[in-house]
Amino acid sequence: MALQVEKTTSGREYKVKDLSQADFGRLEIELAEVEMPGLMACRAEFGPSQPFKGAKITGSLHMTIQTAVLIETLTTLGAEVRWCSCNIFSTQDHAAAAIARDSASVFAWKGENLQEYWWCTERALDWGPGGGPDLIVDDGGDATLLIHEGVKAEEEYEKSGKLPDPSSTDNAEFQIVLTIIRDGLKVDPKKYTKMKERLVGVSEESTTGVKRLYQMQANGTLLFPAINVNDSVTKSKFDNLYGCRHSLPDGLMRATDVMIAGKVGVVCGYGDVGKGCAAALKQAGARVIVTEIDPICALQALMEGFQVLTLEDVVSEADIFVNTSNKDIFMDDHKRNMKSKAIVCNIGHFNDLGYSPGGPGQPSFVMSCSFTNQVIAQLELWKERTTGKYEKTVYVLPRHLEEKAAALHLGKLGAKLTKLKKEQADYIGVPVEGPYKPPHYRY
Amino acid sequence: MALQVEKTTSGREYKVKDLSQADFGRLEIELAEVEMPGLMACRAEFGPSQPFKGAKITGSLHMTIQTAVLIETLTTLGAEVRWCSCNIFSTQDHAAAAIARDSASVFAWKGENLQEYWWCTERALDWGPGGGPDLIVDDGGDATLLIHEGVKAEEEYEKSGKLPDPSSTDNAEFQIVLTIIRDGLKVDPKKYTKMKERLVGVSEESTTGVKRLYQMQANGTLLFPAINVNDSVTKSKFDNLYGCRHSLPDGLMRATDVMIAGKVGVVCGYGDVGKGCAAALKQAGARVIVTEIDPICALQALMEGFQVLTLEDVVSEADIFVNTSNKDIFMDDHKRNMKSKAIVCNIGHFNDLGYSPGGPGQPSFVMSCSFTNQVIAQLELWKERTTGKYEKTVYVLPRHLEEKAAALHLGKLGAKLTKLKKEQADYIGVPVEGPYKPPHYRY
Amino acid sequence: MALQVEKTTSGREYKVKDLSQADFGRLEIELAEVEMPGLMACRAEFGPSQPFKGAKITGSLHMTIQTAVLIETLTTLGAEVRWCSCNIFSTQDHAAAAIARDSASVFAWKGENLQEYWWCTERALDWGPGGGPDLIVDDGGDATLLIHEGVKAEEEYEKSGKLPDPSSTDNAEFQIVLTIIRDGLKVDPKKYTKMKERLVGVSEESTTGVKRLYQMQANGTLLFPAINVNDSVTKSKFDNLYGCRHSLPDGLMRATDVMIAGKVGVVCGYGDVGKGCAAALKQAGARVIVTEIDPICALQALMEGFQVLTLEDVVSEADIFVNTSNKDIFMDDHKRNMKSKAIVCNIGHFNDLGYSPGGPGQPSFVMSCSFTNQVIAQLELWKERTTGKYEKTVYVLPRHLEEKAAALHLGKLGAKLTKLKKEQADYIGVPVEGPYKPPHYRY
Amino acid sequence: MALQVEKTTSGREYKVKDLSQADFGRLEIELAEVEMPGLMACRAEFGPSQPFKGAKITGSLHMTIQTAVLIETLTTLGAEVRWCSCNIFSTQDHAAAAIARDSASVFAWKGENLQEYWWCTERALDWGPGGGPDLIVDDGGDATLLIHEGVKAEEEYEKSGKLPDPSSTDNAEFQIVLTIIRDGLKVDPKKYTKMKERLVGVSEESTTGVKRLYQMQANGTLLFPAINVNDSVTKSKFDNLYGCRHSLPDGLMRATDVMIAGKVGVVCGYGDVGKGCAAALKQAGARVIVTEIDPICALQALMEGFQVLTLEDVVSEADIFVNTSNKDIFMDDHKRNMKSKAIVCNIGHFNDLGYSPGGPGQPSFVMSCSFTNQVIAQLELWKERTTGKYEKTVYVLPRHLEEKAAALHLGKLGAKLTKLKKEQADYIGVPVEGPYKPPHYRY
Repeated sequence: MALQVEKTTSGREYKVKDLSQADFGRLEIELAEVEMPGLMACRAEFGPSQPFKGAKITGSLHMTIQTAVLIETLTTLGAEVRWCSCNIFSTQDHAAAAIARDSASVFAWKGENLQEYWWCTERALDWGPGGGPDLIVDDGGDATLLIHEGVKAEEEYEKSGKLPDPSSTDNAEFQIVLTIIRDGLKVDPKKYTKMKERLVGVSEESTTGVKRLYQMQANGTLLFPAINVNDSVTKSKFDNLYGCRHSLPDGLMRATDVMIAGKVGVVCGYGDVGKGCAAALKQAGARVIVTEIDPICALQALMEGFQVLTLEDVVSEADIFVNTSNKDIFMDDHKRNMKSKAIVCNIGHFNDLGYSPGGPGQPSFVMSCSFTNQVIAQLELWKERTTGKYEKTVYVLPRHLEEKAAALHLGKLGAKLTKLKKEQADYIGVPVEGPYKPPHYRY
Repeated sequence: MALQVEKTTSGREYKVKDLSQADFGRLEIELAEVEMPGLMACRAEFGPSQPFKGAKITGSLHMTIQTAVLIETLTTLGAEVRWCSCNIFSTQDHAAAAIARDSASVFAWKGENLQEYWWCTERALDWGPGGGPDLIVDDGGDATLLIHEGVKAEEEYEKSGKLPDPSSTDNAEFQIVLTIIRDGLKVDPKKYTKMKERLVGVSEESTTGVKRLYQMQANGTLLFPAINVNDSVTKSKFDNLYGCRHSLPDGLMRATDVMIAGKVGVVCGYGDVGKGCAAALKQAGARVIVTEIDPICALQALMEGFQVLTLEDVVSEADIFVNTSNKDIFMDDHKRNMKSKAIVCNIGHFNDLGYSPGGPGQPSFVMSCSFTNQVIAQLELWKERTTGKYEKTVYVLPRHLEEKAAALHLGKLGAKLTKLKKEQADYIGVPVEGPYKPPHYRY
Repeated sequence: MALQVEKTTSGREYKVKDLSQADFGRLEIELAEVEMPGLMACRAEFGPSQPFKGAKITGSLHMTIQTAVLIETLTTLGAEVRWCSCNIFSTQDHAAAAIARDSASVFAWKGENLQEYWWCTERALDWGPGGGPDLIVDDGGDATLLIHEGVKAEEEYEKSGKLPDPSSTDNAEFQIVLTIIRDGLKVDPKKYTKMKERLVGVSEESTTGVKRLYQMQANGTLLFPAINVNDSVTKSKFDNLYGCRHSLPDGLMRATDVMIAGKVGVVCGYGDVGKGCAAALKQAGARVIVTEIDPICALQALMEGFQVLTLEDVVSEADIFVNTSNKDIFMDDHKRNMKSKAIVCNIGHFNDLGYSPGGPGQPSFVMSCSFTNQVIAQLELWKERTTGKYEKTVYVLPRHLEEKAAALHLGKLGAKLTKLKKEQADYIGVPVEGPYKPPHYRY
Repeated sequence: MALQVEKTTSGREYKVKDLSQADFGRLEIELAEVEMPGLMACRAEFGPSQPFKGAKITGSLHMTIQTAVLIETLTTLGAEVRWCSCNIFSTQDHAAAAIARDSASVFAWKGENLQEYWWCTERALDWGPGGGPDLIVDDGGDATLLIHEGVKAEEEYEKSGKLPDPSSTDNAEFQIVLTIIRDGLKVDPKKYTKMKERLVGVSEESTTGVKRLYQMQANGTLLFPAINVNDSVTKSKFDNLYGCRHSLPDGLMRATDVMIAGKVGVVCGYGDVGKGCAAALKQAGARVIVTEIDPICALQALMEGFQVLTLEDVVSEADIFVNTSNKDIFMDDHKRNMKSKAIVCNIGHFNDLGYSPGGPGQPSFVMSCSFTNQVIAQLELWKERTTGKYEKTVYVLPRHLEEKAAALHLGKLGAKLTKLKKEQADYIGVPVEGPYKPPHYRY
C-alpha cells in the first residue's frame, strides 16, 4: 500500500490532502467558533484545570470545520488527539489541514476509497508503543468495531492459531477490515487486546452506532463502557427538530430558488424531523399537509393546525414533498401523479430518492450542542476512569450532565438562569443543583 | 348523619342537589359530546359488543358535564356505574342531575363539606350485597385510599379486635375517614377486604394520585393493579401544553378584558405548561420573557425566540406574569416593583397566589383525551381480568393503547392515517400495527 | 313626556339610570385608564396648558366605561362636556353614573326607547342660553343629523312659516326627530341656526357617519367642518385588524368553550377584519380556509399559507365559520350542509345571522387608539377655529396628527422612537419631524 | 466604436456574450416558467387572440432568466420585441443568449461599460426604417430618458442648428448620452421626434423611474402616457413584504451559514421591507427588536410583539442587524460596540454598507407579480392607443387591472375565487365585477 504517514515539523503524524490549505481552514474555524458557544464555554470553564491531562483520545467523526472546533476543545482541555473521518466523502480538506498543522494527528481527506478509509481509522487508533487510546469519540461506531473485531481475531488466534480470512466474507468492506486486522496480528498479536484493556470508554453520537452498541451489550460482547450521546435531549432535539427547521428552507432555497409562500407542502412523518420541517414550511407561508402512521403524532400535527391526510389524497396538488420518515414513500405511482416540476426532498435518516443529497449540513450551533455532549461525556468517562462507576454497558448521558451541556450554551445567547431555592426544590422534590426533571420527562 | 340516599323511579340510588336540573344538564351534555370525539368514537366502536357487560365501575372524579360524557360512555359500553366527585367544589349540579336521572348512581353536589364528601365516596364504593366494584376510575386517589385504609383497619381488627380511633390523628379530614371506616366495620368487618379481593384494578389520572400509587407500590402495600393514565402522552401533553395554550388567553381575557398584543409577558417555567403559555402569549402579540431554572428548558425557550432572564431583571417592565412552576415565585419584593395593575396569574399545579382560581377549566376536547385514556385503561384491565397480565403494580398505559386513544380522536378532526407497509415496518424495526415508537420517545 | 332632567348637588344636569352606581363605575374607569394609554398621555401632555379652556363639547357616542375615559380626558384638557349615547342599548349605567356625578352632563341609560334616545341627544346638544356646543364628537352622525335637520326646518319656517310635519314620513324614528325639531321651533325658531353658526366642527368615527358626511359634502349641504377619524390608520387597523384578532377568539371561547386547536375554520373575506380573524384562528391551532371575491386579497391570503376556496367547497368539513364580509353569506343551503353543532359567527360591520351579537366589544387599548384620534381631531379643530384652515368640508386627520396619536401610545408599551437625522430626512425626502409617509402609503 | 450588431440565421439582430449558452438559458427559463404563473396565465388567456399583433415593444430591464419569461410572454401575445438591460452588471448571459436565439432582439451582457450600456439602449430603441417602438417597458427610466433628451436636442437643433455638446456637462454618463444623441442627429434629425410621435406609452416599474416621470409631468415635459406599475399593491407588497420575508433568511443562510434561532436580530425600519424582515427572523426563532422613527409603524411593531428600541440600546447585545430604512444607520460608534462577528446587512433601497450586495435577488414568483402588472399595463396602453383614454400623464394601474394581475396568479396556487352576487355588490356599493376596494384602501 502506497499510503505513507507524514510528519509536521514538530513531529506530529498526519495524512491529509493539502497542508497548504491550513490558513483557509484556520479562518473558517475561527468563524465557526462564534457559532459553537458550548465548545468555547467548555474551553473557558475547563481549560485552566486541564482535565484531559494525560488522556489520549481517538476520534472517528466527519473531519469538518465544526469537528475541528471539537478537536481543539479536547486539546485545549489537555488531551492528545488522533483523528479520522467516519465517512469517505465528508472531510473538508482545509479543516483537516489546519488541525494537522496546528493541533492533532489527522488522517482524513475528501474522497477516500474504502481501503484508504480503514487505513485512516487504523492509524487514528494506533498510538504506537506508548499505548492508547484512552478514550474514543465515535460516530457510526467504526473505531469501536475495529477494536471489537481485532480482539475477536486475536482471541481466536491465541486459541487456535488461525488468522482472520478476508475471503470468508462476500462483503467487500469487511474483507478490508479483516485484512487490516490480519496484517496487524502478524506484527503484534495483542494489539487490539492491549487497546481494549486500556480503554476507559467510548462516547457515540449516531443512531447506527448506538444500535450496534446495544446489540453488543445484549450479546454480552461489549468490551468497554459506552455513553450513548445520541439520545440526549440536546442532541436529538437539536439535530432533528431545530436543525431541520433551519436546514429544510435553507436547502430548498439554495437548491431551487423557489418561493415557499403560497405553496402546498407535504411532510411525510411528524416525528422531530417532521415537526421541524412542517413548522419551517408553515412559517415561510406554505400550506402544510402531514402524512403519518402514528396516531399520536397525527394528533399533535392536528393541534398545530396541520391537515393530516395520505399521500394519495394530495399528491397531485402539492408543490413540495418532504420525506422525513421511511423508505418507499414516494412511489412511481405518486411521481406520475405529481405536478410537473414538483419538488421532492429527503431529510433525516432515510434516503428515499436514490442519491445522496449534498447541502450545507447542520448549522454549527446545532453541532455545538452535539459536540458539547461529546466533550461532557468524555470528561465524565475520564473522571470516573478508576472509580468503577461505568461498567461494560451502554449508558445514556446522566441528566445532570445533559443540563450542563445545555447550560454551556446559555451565556452566548444572553440568557440568565434562575436559581432554585431550597424550599422550592423540596416542594417539587428535586435537588437544588439538579437534575430537575424525571428520567421519562419529554421536554 | 342526616344524609339520605334517594332513589329514582327506576330504583337507582343517588344524592344530588336538584334533580330538576336534569334537562339543562342533558342539553349541555349533548353540546359537550361534540367536543369529546374520543369518547363518542369509543361508543361507536365498542358499544355494540358491550365489553363492560357485567362490570361494576366506581368513579371518583369531578362530577362535571365533561365527566358525564365519560360516565355515559362507560354505561354505553355495558358497565353499571356509581360516581362521586373528587373535590367538594367541582360538581356541576345540572350534570349530576342528568346522570342521576338517566344513567348512573351519583353522589355529588357543589359545596359539600368534608363529612359529606367522604359519605359520597363511601356510597359510590358501596355496591350492596351483590358486591363490587370491579373497577375504579380515580382522580386524586381518594377512592383507592378509602379501600386501602379500610383493609388496613379490618386486618388490624381481625388480628387485635381494635377499631380505628379517629382521635389518634390531628388531621381533621383523616378523622372523618377513620370514622367512616369504623362505622362500617361494625356493620361488616370484611367490607373493604371483600372489595379489594374482587377489584380488578384502578386507573388513576392525577399527578397526586399517581404519586400515592407509586409510594404504595414501593412500600409493598398496593392491593390491586393500577394504571397510571397521568403520564400518557395524550394526557400530559394535552392537559399541559395544548390545554394551557388554550386556557391562558381565555382566562386572561375573561378575567381582565386586557388586550394581550403589545404587552410584555413573563412566563415562569418553560415545561409543558410554560411552553403552552409562552406560545399563547406570543401568538396573541405579546413580547414574552421566560424564567427558568433548568438549562435544557431554557435553551428550548431561546430556540423559539424567547428571552430568558430572571424575574428580578424584568419585574418592573412586564404587564402579565404567569407562574407555571413552583411556589414562592412572586415574592413581596417583586410585587412592590411591579407596575400598577400588572396582571399576575397562576396556572398548572402550583398556586402561588394564596387563593384558588376559578376559570372555565380545561376545554372538553382536552378532557376527551384524558378520559379516552381512562376508558381504554378500564377496558384493558377488564379484558385481562383473568389472565394475570396485570399484577399489584403500577403500569403506564401500554404504548399501543395510547396510540388507540389518540386514533379515536382523528376521525372527528378529519384526519386520515397512512398505513405502514410490511417492508417499511421491517426497515425501521416496528410492528406494522404499532406501537411505532420506543418507550423513551419524547414526542 | 315624563322625562325630567336631574341635577347634581353642584348643579350639573344629567339623566342616568342610577347615580348610586357611580362608585362601581369609578372603579372600572380606573382599571380602564391603564389600558388606554393614549388618552392618559393626552392628559399628561396637554392637561397643564388647558387647551380646551372655554370649549363646550357635545358627544354622541356609546356611554361606556371606555368612553368615560375619553370624556374625562376632554374635561381634564379644560372642556365642558355634555354627552349622550349613540345607541339605545350600549350605555353602561355605572359608567354614566360616575361621569354624571363627577365630570360631565350625561343623558344616557341602557335600554332607551327611540323617543328617549332623541330626547337625550337633544339634551346633550342644548347648552342653554349661553349657547353651544363649540365642538361635536360624533359616532354614527346623529348629533350632526339633528342639527342639519333643525337648520333645514328653521330655514323653511322662516321662509314659509311651515312647521315640520312628522306625519309626512313613514319612518317612525324620523317622525320622532321631526317632532323634537317642531317642538323646539315653537320655543326658539333660531335654535339650530345659532348652533351651526357657533359650531367649530365635528369629528366623526363611524363608517356610517362618515358616509353621511361625504354625502352632505357632495350635496353642498354640510354646515360645518368635519374630520373623518374613521379612516385614520390607527383607527381602522386597530378596530379591524388588531381588534378582531383579539376579539374573535375571546368571543368564541366565552360563547362556546370550544377548543380552537385542531378545528377547521372558514373566514369569509380577507380584508382587515378577515386578516385579523384568520391570523387569530391560525395562531390558536386551527386550519383556516379563506373565501374571497377580491383576487388581491385572495393572493395575500395565499402568501400567509391560507387555502382559498369557496364556501361550497368546505361547508361540510368546517367547524367554525366567520363572516367578515357581506350579507347573504351563509345561506340555507350552506346551513343544511354544515356539520351538526358547527359554530357560525359574524364579526365586523355585516350581520348575516339575523340577531345582534353581544360580546365584550373592543378591548380598551383598541378604543384608546380611536379615542386619541378623536381628542387630537378636536384639539386641531379648536386650535384652528379662527384661522379658516378648515372649511365646510370633510377632512381626514392630517398624517402628522395620526402620527401624534400613535406616538401617545408608545411610552406605556415601553417603546423608544429613533430620531431622524437631518441628512437622513433629506435623503428620503421627508421633514425631520414628520409626517414620514406619503398620503397613499399602505402601512 | 467597435460594437457590432450580429444577426441570427433568421435575420434577427442581437449582441450578447455567447450565443452558445442558449440551451442552458432555455433550460432555466423553463424552470422559471413554473414559478411565474401570472405570466404563463397571460399566455394561456391572451395568447390565442394575439392582442399585441403589430406592436413593437422596446424593453430596458435587467436581462435575466425571469425577464426572459416576460419577453416571451410579450412575443407569445403577438409583439415584436427589442431588449436591453437597465444595469451594466445584471444581465444573465445565458438568458440573453436564449432570447436572442429564439425570441427577440437582445443587446445585453454582464459587465458592460457605460458606453456599451447606452449603445445597447439605443439599439433596443432603434427599430429601423419601419419605425418604432410603439410601447416601452422601462425599469429605471433610461429608455424614456434617452427619448426625452433626444427630442429636446432635436428641437434645439431645428430651432437653432445647435448640436448637443457633451463637454457641456461634468457627468461622465450624461456625456455619453449626449454623444449618442449628437451622432444620431447627424444621421436623422427627427429620429427621436418620430419615436415620441408614434409612442403609445411606457410602463415603468422602479421607484427611481417613477420619480422621474412625476417630475416630467410636473414640469410639463412628459412626451407620452406613462403607467406607474411601481405602486401597484401586487408590485409593492410582493417586492417588499413578501419578497424580503423570503430573501432575508435566504441571503443570511447562504452568506453566513448561521443558525437564526436563538439569535437577537435588530431590524431598522418597520415599513413593508422591515415588516417582512422582522417576520422572517421571528419565524426562524430569533428575538427581534425594531428601531423606528415613525410612531405609527412603531405601534404596528409592538402589536406584533416586537420590542421597539433605539439602535444604541441594543447594539452590543444583538447578533444580526438589518437596515431596511435609510443611509447612516450603522455608524462607526455602533460598529465599535457590536459583538465580534456580528452580522450586518442591508436590504431594500438603501445601501448603508459601502458595497453592492449580491445575493440571489427576488424569487421568480415575486417577479411574476411585477411583470404581470407590466404585461397588463402594456395591454391596456395598446388597447386604448386610439381612444385618447390616456394622456401625457402618469397613471397608476387602474384597480381593476391590478385585480386582474392578481387573479392571473390564483389558479397555479390552487385558489378558487367566490363570485359576488348582485345584491351583495349593491349592499357594499361595488360593481359585481370589481374593482372591489376604494382607491385609498390599504390592503
